[in-house]
Amino acid sequence: MEKHWHDACGVFGIYNHGEAANLTYLGLHSVQHRGQESAGIVVSDGRRMRSHLGMGLVHDIFDHETLAKLPGVHAIGHVRYSTSGSSELKNAQPFFVDTVHGPIAFAHNGNLVNAAELRRRLEEQGSIFQGTTDTEVIAHLYARSKEDKLIERLIDALRRVRGAYSLVMLVEKRLVAVRDPHGFRPLVLGKVKDSYVVASETCALDLIEGEFLREIEPGEMLMISSKGLESLRPFPPVEPRHCIFEHIYFARPDSVVFGQSVYNVREAFGRELAREHPVEADVVVPVPDSGIVAALGFSEESGIPFAMGLIRNHYVGRTFIEPEQSIRHFGVRLKLNGVRGVLQGRRVVVVDDSIVRGTTSQKIVKMIREAGAREVHMRISSPPTCFPCYFGIDTPTRTELIASSHSVEEINRYLTSDSLGYLSREGLRKATANGPYVYCDACFTGDYPVPREDPPGPPSC
Amino acid sequence: MEKHWHDACGVFGIYNHGEAANLTYLGLHSVQHRGQESAGIVVSDGRRMRSHLGMGLVHDIFDHETLAKLPGVHAIGHVRYSTSGSSELKNAQPFFVDTVHGPIAFAHNGNLVNAAELRRRLEEQGSIFQGTTDTEVIAHLYARSKEDKLIERLIDALRRVRGAYSLVMLVEKRLVAVRDPHGFRPLVLGKVKDSYVVASETCALDLIEGEFLREIEPGEMLMISSKGLESLRPFPPVEPRHCIFEHIYFARPDSVVFGQSVYNVREAFGRELAREHPVEADVVVPVPDSGIVAALGFSEESGIPFAMGLIRNHYVGRTFIEPEQSIRHFGVRLKLNGVRGVLQGRRVVVVDDSIVRGTTSQKIVKMIREAGAREVHMRISSPPTCFPCYFGIDTPTRTELIASSHSVEEINRYLTSDSLGYLSREGLRKATANGPYVYCDACFTGDYPVPREDPPGPPSC
Amino acid sequence: MEKHWHDACGVFGIYNHGEAANLTYLGLHSVQHRGQESAGIVVSDGRRMRSHLGMGLVHDIFDHETLAKLPGVHAIGHVRYSTSGSSELKNAQPFFVDTVHGPIAFAHNGNLVNAAELRRRLEEQGSIFQGTTDTEVIAHLYARSKEDKLIERLIDALRRVRGAYSLVMLVEKRLVAVRDPHGFRPLVLGKVKDSYVVASETCALDLIEGEFLREIEPGEMLMISSKGLESLRPFPPVEPRHCIFEHIYFARPDSVVFGQSVYNVREAFGRELAREHPVEADVVVPVPDSGIVAALGFSEESGIPFAMGLIRNHYVGRTFIEPEQSIRHFGVRLKLNGVRGVLQGRRVVVVDDSIVRGTTSQKIVKMIREAGAREVHMRISSPPTCFPCYFGIDTPTRTELIASSHSVEEINRYLTSDSLGYLSREGLRKATANGPYVYCDACFTGDYPVPREDPPGPPSC
Amino acid sequence: MEKHWHDACGVFGIYNHGEAANLTYLGLHSVQHRGQESAGIVVSDGRRMRSHLGMGLVHDIFDHETLAKLPGVHAIGHVRYSTSGSSELKNAQPFFVDTVHGPIAFAHNGNLVNAAELRRRLEEQGSIFQGTTDTEVIAHLYARSKEDKLIERLIDALRRVRGAYSLVMLVEKRLVAVRDPHGFRPLVLGKVKDSYVVASETCALDLIEGEFLREIEPGEMLMISSKGLESLRPFPPVEPRHCIFEHIYFARPDSVVFGQSVYNVREAFGRELAREHPVEADVVVPVPDSGIVAALGFSEESGIPFAMGLIRNHYVGRTFIEPEQSIRHFGVRLKLNGVRGVLQGRRVVVVDDSIVRGTTSQKIVKMIREAGAREVHMRISSPPTCFPCYFGIDTPTRTELIASSHSVEEINRYLTSDSLGYLSREGLRKATANGPYVYCDACFTGDYPVPREDPPGPPSC
Repeated sequence: MEKHWHDACGVFGIYNHGEAANLTYLGLHSVQHRGQESAGIVVSDGRRMRSHLGMGLVHDIFDHETLAKLPGVHAIGHVRYSTSGSSELKNAQPFFVDTVHGPIAFAHNGNLVNAAELRRRLEEQGSIFQGTTDTEVIAHLYARSKEDKLIERLIDALRRVRGAYSLVMLVEKRLVAVRDPHGFRPLVLGKVKDSYVVASETCALDLIEGEFLREIEPGEMLMISSKGLESLRPFPPVEPRHCIFEHIYFARPDSVVFGQSVYNVREAFGRELAREHPVEADVVVPVPDSGIVAALGFSEESGIPFAMGLIRNHYVGRTFIEPEQSIRHFGVRLKLNGVRGVLQGRRVVVVDDSIVRGTTSQKIVKMIREAGAREVHMRISSPPTCFPCYFGIDTPTRTELIASSHSVEEINRYLTSDSLGYLSREGLRKATANGPYVYCDACFTGDYPVPREDPPGPPSC
Repeated sequence: MEKHWHDACGVFGIYNHGEAANLTYLGLHSVQHRGQESAGIVVSDGRRMRSHLGMGLVHDIFDHETLAKLPGVHAIGHVRYSTSGSSELKNAQPFFVDTVHGPIAFAHNGNLVNAAELRRRLEEQGSIFQGTTDTEVIAHLYARSKEDKLIERLIDALRRVRGAYSLVMLVEKRLVAVRDPHGFRPLVLGKVKDSYVVASETCALDLIEGEFLREIEPGEMLMISSKGLESLRPFPPVEPRHCIFEHIYFARPDSVVFGQSVYNVREAFGRELAREHPVEADVVVPVPDSGIVAALGFSEESGIPFAMGLIRNHYVGRTFIEPEQSIRHFGVRLKLNGVRGVLQGRRVVVVDDSIVRGTTSQKIVKMIREAGAREVHMRISSPPTCFPCYFGIDTPTRTELIASSHSVEEINRYLTSDSLGYLSREGLRKATANGPYVYCDACFTGDYPVPREDPPGPPSC
Repeated sequence: MEKHWHDACGVFGIYNHGEAANLTYLGLHSVQHRGQESAGIVVSDGRRMRSHLGMGLVHDIFDHETLAKLPGVHAIGHVRYSTSGSSELKNAQPFFVDTVHGPIAFAHNGNLVNAAELRRRLEEQGSIFQGTTDTEVIAHLYARSKEDKLIERLIDALRRVRGAYSLVMLVEKRLVAVRDPHGFRPLVLGKVKDSYVVASETCALDLIEGEFLREIEPGEMLMISSKGLESLRPFPPVEPRHCIFEHIYFARPDSVVFGQSVYNVREAFGRELAREHPVEADVVVPVPDSGIVAALGFSEESGIPFAMGLIRNHYVGRTFIEPEQSIRHFGVRLKLNGVRGVLQGRRVVVVDDSIVRGTTSQKIVKMIREAGAREVHMRISSPPTCFPCYFGIDTPTRTELIASSHSVEEINRYLTSDSLGYLSREGLRKATANGPYVYCDACFTGDYPVPREDPPGPPSC
Repeated sequence: MEKHWHDACGVFGIYNHGEAANLTYLGLHSVQHRGQESAGIVVSDGRRMRSHLGMGLVHDIFDHETLAKLPGVHAIGHVRYSTSGSSELKNAQPFFVDTVHGPIAFAHNGNLVNAAELRRRLEEQGSIFQGTTDTEVIAHLYARSKEDKLIERLIDALRRVRGAYSLVMLVEKRLVAVRDPHGFRPLVLGKVKDSYVVASETCALDLIEGEFLREIEPGEMLMISSKGLESLRPFPPVEPRHCIFEHIYFARPDSVVFGQSVYNVREAFGRELAREHPVEADVVVPVPDSGIVAALGFSEESGIPFAMGLIRNHYVGRTFIEPEQSIRHFGVRLKLNGVRGVLQGRRVVVVDDSIVRGTTSQKIVKMIREAGAREVHMRISSPPTCFPCYFGIDTPTRTELIASSHSVEEINRYLTSDSLGYLSREGLRKATANGPYVYCDACFTGDYPVPREDPPGPPSC
């Protein structure tokens, strides 16, 4: 189920390709699931940089005409998460400005834990801010750096920030890709013929028939220029801490993220979940689309047949309204409907990736019962999310997370399910096990790899 | 895979409800999969009728403001199929006109086989036509009828037409629902509290928490008025001939259509397919979304594990463009991507509902091989489609249907698959077996229940 | 002052020109003052006809792309008047339909006095109506005619209608222009190189650098085809009755209408007005733009200096809103403002073309006084409008016309002006005098050349 | 004739009014003639500030809904000039940012002569720029000021800039209005009941029924707060240098600008012009709308009758296109048309306010001759514009100004007019004579009150 509980943005960049804007458009389309609020592309023809940004989906913002006005051979692009509140064009990215070093554009996926503090200090030094993104903070730090060289200025800026950042930066003739030392968010390097490509997920490479070379590594700064690739390691090494929620929910199953197939990891979550919380049942039903792969793993391990007992209506777009006068609140019914032919008279295991507030899950349980299910057993392919994420965006506060203040049994009662089982942290570790555990799972443990410095504040990307 | 090879429209109607327009909006959202080109709602407050129609998706056409301008207690709505060519606002429905008998609105799902002939005759008598829909023909026949009573006029009109029609009609104080004698297209009757509802599929009742009462029967004309329901059988009885493609592809799996759960029938197709065309393989992969349920049936019967080896990008909307200069044609890649973690090194059974021209299927085979599959076995959950449909819309001509001129083995070579198996007509019959076979399957057999009278012509609904 | 009290539509047609749609676009732009609600163009390439219509101004509806989709060598176009109420796309013109005789398009400026009656009869014969225009009535009559030839069918249809019509009709290879026997509305014939052009006003010829040949004469039916011009006189001759309001208000001053320069006639109105209602004053001020030319005539004749003492804000468009919460109603202030440097301490003669309800004029008097005028003398370049117009559109009912129930002295008191003078019918006659009086001035006299048959009804064009 | 040769922006501000956004909307509508590219409003409710900006006309950008989302009691607004090239949303104003001192918004009309130099220095200190307006420079200077108090910071910032600025600034609870020491651009103070208002022109006060109190004086900084008005004179006094083009072309004739009625001054230009360049002629015709008032003065002085011999089509909007394939370039014909009834056989004096490149004037001469004029005498109500303006915006370079390289006689030959006369600088002085000459007329003389420091660069406001 889509949750918007901590979302992610998506980035894309391409160097030295005759159709840079077109391929960026396609790349953004591939990572559209990472953000639907706004999108933008900045191109460079080696001398002049141009941009086009807008609110909405990539295919609503760009058409033949707008793409034709973006000539150039290098480009970066960005898609931003979707929430109702703070959505404004001035927060759209790439963030594109003039500095003393010339025009520069930044596309950023992540969240800084000291952005508010840095912003305050920058404002004290006379900086002005038009939006509320962390990206604007990074741009100011870069512009204020006294270093001579672009790469030194960027290092200077990034040494001041703490938190999660997978960042792509474009100047006239160079493209830089950086990942924070912990490597919270994914960022991969690929190639389309002779052109280097960077993207949030490998599925963006697949669409443009590119080759996946490798991940940008945690703490790596990769400069792409006419000289080719130049890799730097400007930060002291720390242990990697990849966001486990990329595997649980964010990334597309057809992507390879943090060295592993998202599909395979997600399926393994389901298998572990079946081992940990077995139940006598007739059918395993996913909450589509996010619960499908884990549900398949659960079915496989448990031997209980898998069925698509909930059908998703994919036509719920940004502009869908709930009729005003209506006394009922339709909510999840607008998106999902139970299949009586699958559910009637059955003992149903329903698999979802996580529970945030619990309200949606409660409605799903009710919907499955209304379709005739005899029993409804809820299985969640991740541990209880008890702590807000400081490295993603749009985090509910702790009090909004039902698991922060309720036991599993209490949640089960709230959902009105017959049983409820969460995957354990141990199960999570096993499922991802290919060596030491390299994930940030602070949302389950409260054990943040980087301490929060800012007070809770506005969302960012 | 979406094919637009013969599509369907969707209709909805509600009588005597304080939020008639709002519920119609929701009902149309539920049947949005039946048509994405245009949509419209006509309401009546018992005296005055009002309409709003537009191009695009229901949620793009209607918002709080437009719905607020549709006061009334009775309403009908329509969604129209999507093709690029003949899409025009003047073909949007409901078709709403003034006649000597007052204002009247028609929403129609189907296709007449003598529409062109009727149109010619009506034009000879001086009628003028603004659009190209069959609905306009029905409206003219109704307006020209000399009968005194509304219901007699409608009978008079419908006795002149031949073909498929599931029709909903609204006048100031009455709503009429009719299904053609063969019952080609579905149409159901439900209830929301005290208000009667008609809809193309039961999933529309589910969303508004309505109760499914029964189907409007083939040849039945149901008048809903302040006196309640009145059912008429004005046509000589004939054998039912339901469109088998509703079960194969059109209808939503969560609907009950022609008395059977679409999900269950579609799953049975998959099981029969596995029996008819077994293959040694490692994984069964559906072409999403239309192939999923049949693939589950195939997996169940064959014991070969099911996996979502193709991931669908749901953000491909009407406005999505393929960048102009690009030398490559992206086509199905924009919608689907293979999951290497599922496909690599595997012998893959890929299940789709049908093949039209073969070009898309060919690209899917290629995509699966590129993701590392060792073998690709294509299985189709319906027989070869060799004949155009005269009762649906937007039918390719016979020459465009690859199966009309190629053997299965030739098609297999064209697709570059390792093997290809279609469900037999026998298997189809078995899977739907609940008594005598009541389906129209002329697209497989050329055995049309109603002979075509018109020359091939413009699309309609 | 713009009054919308009886407005006019504008038509344009061109035969055999390589840029038919482009020139029609320009022609409609030239007659945009005759209608701002909707516009449309229908083209024919000799075989196929295509259309594009929309709501709003010509330049908002058409762009390079839409014009490029209108290939063809013959075209007609239409602009429709603007009111808030009944504005709907389905009333936009040209009215373009299929008939037994093939596709046909009509663009019409005028009003029939027996449209409702004809519509009732047509509906009784089974015709259906989608909009509320008189044009649709004419199209039905044409389609129902049993005559063999196009021109005979059109004659047949027009013999049944009574009222005002300046009509342009396009079929695949022919263009027909007709004016009703009285010649209420203007229609002219011109030439651009070898291509014939028809238009509501000569200013449309000026823009496209066309040559003004002559008026289509009252009762003339002119067929333009590959054989050249063919002129018919199918109606019994009657006395011409040109709408005097074309000279008073509708037509652009740079047009020649009914054989006379609008500018010169309007100026003569002002001179007569000065003779009839002299006043001691310091300055003559027009209500822009419609009062300017008459005010110049008044100034010339009276010797009182002319000044632009009221400035018009031309940025008041269709979408201009009056802020909601505001306690004041801004009305005419949004359009006009007084020039203190002109008005302060002066005795002002303010010249307008007509008074409808009196509310606007009252505000103008107040505005002039607030700008410091010592005296305000209102002079109107036409007689009191006491009767609604049946031959135009959007007519206020009689009770809304202040002059229908108030004496000049009473109106003067209502306006709070120091004096009020209307041009007499005698003066009107003198100013237009070039032979016998050929005008319809029923709005002043109630002496309608064609009796009204329909009850008051919906607006048309 | 509209020239876009040096345009102006418009500003508006209101303090302490319950409908601040609504009145600002109306105020911007009144100064819409000063800029049609973009518009914006920023409001403050005393604690929180909100903004809405967009491209296009005020009434296209704002509607009931957007205004309702701008609650607050203080507001400022801005309209920006219109050119095709550099038009971008990020240059729209008010410029609204967060600083260490809190949120602040600037609306600015003018042009700095050292903006590029300041921008370079600010960038060197690490500032980043998103747009190309001078306003962004002022905002940075303000944000970087070390002064404690808002007013001191603003003084600190403005002491660094040189050039023309009429600036309105809004913070949570205060509104500041400043005019540069020379007072290049107008800025007036008014009152609506108890609320202070500032605006570019007095016509904005008229619309909202406000009272004109006085001009903000050159070099004055006026702070409006809960304490009332506070006036400061932070700059060394210099001689006033009001832009003479406000009287010649920019300002609306119903405004009082620089202490004089624009109408009266413009009329005086015409009278002086008649004295300096008398001619035997039959009619004086203005180029509408900008030449009307001067033409009236010319007519009055010369005794030659005035007539509206050129009619303007006001429907030429931003989106108007010239059909692509057309071999002719329509240009000024789309806007103007000659009145044959006025011009035929006449000796015509045509009065315009200025000549920039000469191409438009040449077409006007041709148009008048084609309408039958025997002689065409061009009279210009200002001296030859030989020098670009550094204090306005969108200035053509010197080489584009025909008068910079051609004598009056050469220009006359180029225009193909029978004679050409420009108002002399002496005449200009006489016409504006109410004491010493207080105008900047560098565009005629090259005698810039403030030396240009920047190289020619991008347009600003």
